[in-house]
Amino acid sequence: MGNPSQVIIPKGFKAAGVKCGIKASGNLDLAMIVSDHSCAAAGTFTLNRVAAAPVQWDRALVPAHGLRGVVVNAGNANAATGQQGLDNAAKMAELAAKAVGCDQRQMLVASTGVIGHQLPMEKIELGITLALGELTSDASGFELASRAIMTTDTVPKVAGKSITMSTGEVVQLMGLCKGAAMIGPRMATMLAFIVTDANLNETVLQEQLSAIVDDSFNCISVEGHASTNDTVLLLANGQANVKALEGADIALFQAALREVCVELAMMIPGDGEGATHRITIDVEGCKTRDEAVAIARAVADSPLVKTAIHGADPNWGRIVSAAGYAGVDFQESEMCLILNGFPLYHKGTPLNFDAAKVSAHIRENRETHILLKFDRGASKIRFWTCDLTAEYIHLNADYTT
Amino acid sequence: MGNPSQVIIPKGFKAAGVKCGIKASGNLDLAMIVSDHSCAAAGTFTLNRVAAAPVQWDRALVPAHGLRGVVVNAGNANAATGQQGLDNAAKMAELAAKAVGCDQRQMLVASTGVIGHQLPMEKIELGITLALGELTSDASGFELASRAIMTTDTVPKVAGKSITMSTGEVVQLMGLCKGAAMIGPRMATMLAFIVTDANLNETVLQEQLSAIVDDSFNCISVEGHASTNDTVLLLANGQANVKALEGADIALFQAALREVCVELAMMIPGDGEGATHRITIDVEGCKTRDEAVAIARAVADSPLVKTAIHGADPNWGRIVSAAGYAGVDFQESEMCLILNGFPLYHKGTPLNFDAAKVSAHIRENRETHILLKFDRGASKIRFWTCDLTAEYIHLNADYTT
Repeated sequence: MGNPSQVIIPKGFKAAGVKCGIKASGNLDLAMIVSDHSCAAAGTFTLNRVAAAPVQWDRALVPAHGLRGVVVNAGNANAATGQQGLDNAAKMAELAAKAVGCDQRQMLVASTGVIGHQLPMEKIELGITLALGELTSDASGFELASRAIMTTDTVPKVAGKSITMSTGEVVQLMGLCKGAAMIGPRMATMLAFIVTDANLNETVLQEQLSAIVDDSFNCISVEGHASTNDTVLLLANGQANVKALEGADIALFQAALREVCVELAMMIPGDGEGATHRITIDVEGCKTRDEAVAIARAVADSPLVKTAIHGADPNWGRIVSAAGYAGVDFQESEMCLILNGFPLYHKGTPLNFDAAKVSAHIRENRETHILLKFDRGASKIRFWTCDLTAEYIHLNADYTT
Repeated sequence: MGNPSQVIIPKGFKAAGVKCGIKASGNLDLAMIVSDHSCAAAGTFTLNRVAAAPVQWDRALVPAHGLRGVVVNAGNANAATGQQGLDNAAKMAELAAKAVGCDQRQMLVASTGVIGHQLPMEKIELGITLALGELTSDASGFELASRAIMTTDTVPKVAGKSITMSTGEVVQLMGLCKGAAMIGPRMATMLAFIVTDANLNETVLQEQLSAIVDDSFNCISVEGHASTNDTVLLLANGQANVKALEGADIALFQAALREVCVELAMMIPGDGEGATHRITIDVEGCKTRDEAVAIARAVADSPLVKTAIHGADPNWGRIVSAAGYAGVDFQESEMCLILNGFPLYHKGTPLNFDAAKVSAHIRENRETHILLKFDRGASKIRFWTCDLTAEYIHLNADYTT
């Protein structure tokens, strides 16, 4: 788990997390992340047809340069809220922009929480006023921000990297994200905010972000329900290096961005609602990446697979049968299954194994590894999900009421 | 719920259900349904690439005439069992055929239970011997058979119709099915056996069955995990009417077959593992049937929708957001939601409603109705699922061990 105190804050960024009464719990519920200077910005958003109002606001603004920051509330998703919701998202951007002294269209917005309720605008306004007074370039501001965007998350999720460029300049990259349910693998699947003081234009940022999101935030699932609010935003203010990055330095930055995105993405199923196991699914030897993704998703989203892992039950038939309905036309004789290192199924035939030993291995480890190997080609994917527990049911059977 | 005693057994059919030790519980676990005369037979089967051995046996035999019956075991799925599994399925058919005095290839087989274990063939052989002694045309034989095919089902599932033909002849149609989990809407989604004494050839039977299964057994879901063993078999021995059915009588038979299939299919989510609500989902006003099905499936398989209904929580945002990720390119402004008769969302805008009243209505009724209306065309679908409860988790976290 990332520890904000080990992450160096990129130059020129400030953050805050405050309480303004949106969450019934009284916890932190509004965050601002602001750059002193204009940023190049990139984003990826939910593909849900019911896209939240803040998603519609941001989607119209990025990729672009000249952005200054983002204001985020938790406790209310501002989704499925009609025209009034769109007006409220614009108003939220306007209030935050006025507070930091920039134009409304330089401010991005994000919301997370219950769907279908109008934003309490007086509370939002109060929160922005409070946040303005708390904005700090100290790590504590980002730590409070990472807590303010949580809903049913049990831990804040932060990751970062320092990157030394060929010029000797050191660039910082850090990100924070939230998400514990309504996590399904379509486009970006939660809220994530990544900031850097690298000097890169929005075209390069967007290209890198889109490719990397596909292998990180798009490869996680809690229960397969794609949210209305999924957003990944990347802001680069260029304060660490004078000239825009070139050549090998772009590749260095991209590698670090990939590491940060994967690290953040993995934290989400690691903190899945009620989860007792994080499950890493490797699907290898497929004809195409799409084939591998389809099989990994079918396994990741099967409640029968997820409950078996929860029960430390080496009921591997649920895994191979989930692969079987993924819509890929493989033959049983092409498939092998290795669970936590134990070979259970080889080219269509069950293997003898010590069920008590495999069960104990699942029970004693929070990390579970499912490896499905095919004989069809060289494409592969890595996917992360979590188990399904009675606690998930309790958490979700009465979330609004 | 169908009561076998209200169903008239079609002429010339006998059934039995016996205990032979396959189920650890010691419950009934082997069933036979046999016709005294040759039958025309039709079937629909799982599309899972990991198709069970008995599915592979049956798929090679139907549609055809000259069939005599089916032997079924519960407690072991004979799926993902390699060549030995295929040999065991063939042996099971051979043993049953020998018992009733017909050819091996006149006997269909089905299995349900845990995946990946070889069939205990001595127990199967014992069961077939016992069943032979118990075969009866009395309703009690079918009732025992309907119990012997159960796994985690809590009730047996039987339905039937009497159909008076234009000739005055009366034809009987009856079916039995099982299923409470690993139920996902792909092709046929459990075991169902339907028998009739109508005189119809296998071409007509297969055509009718394939069309009707699409609107019945393919429109149900418990958790969306399509089984390896899904099988619907229809046997017609022609003992009720002399000449093959023609014209309007074929349509009469088809209408009755549809009613029986829908009645049986609805019983499965009605008895979903741990379920406290059956949920009927109507999706109307779509451009195509495929659109309506995609939206209905997304809603039916969303754990967040299912837990909300379990908690009597009118958290309708989960329903419209599930529709939103179904892959249909609708606009929010085309969608309306009515839950148990209460309008909650109208053309993209949330409506004011009495949450306590809607919640009480969900809590006090075992049947829940979700109506999603679009403005895109005239296509529609009706789908059935059930809620997701902590009991489902408990049942599935340690099923094999």
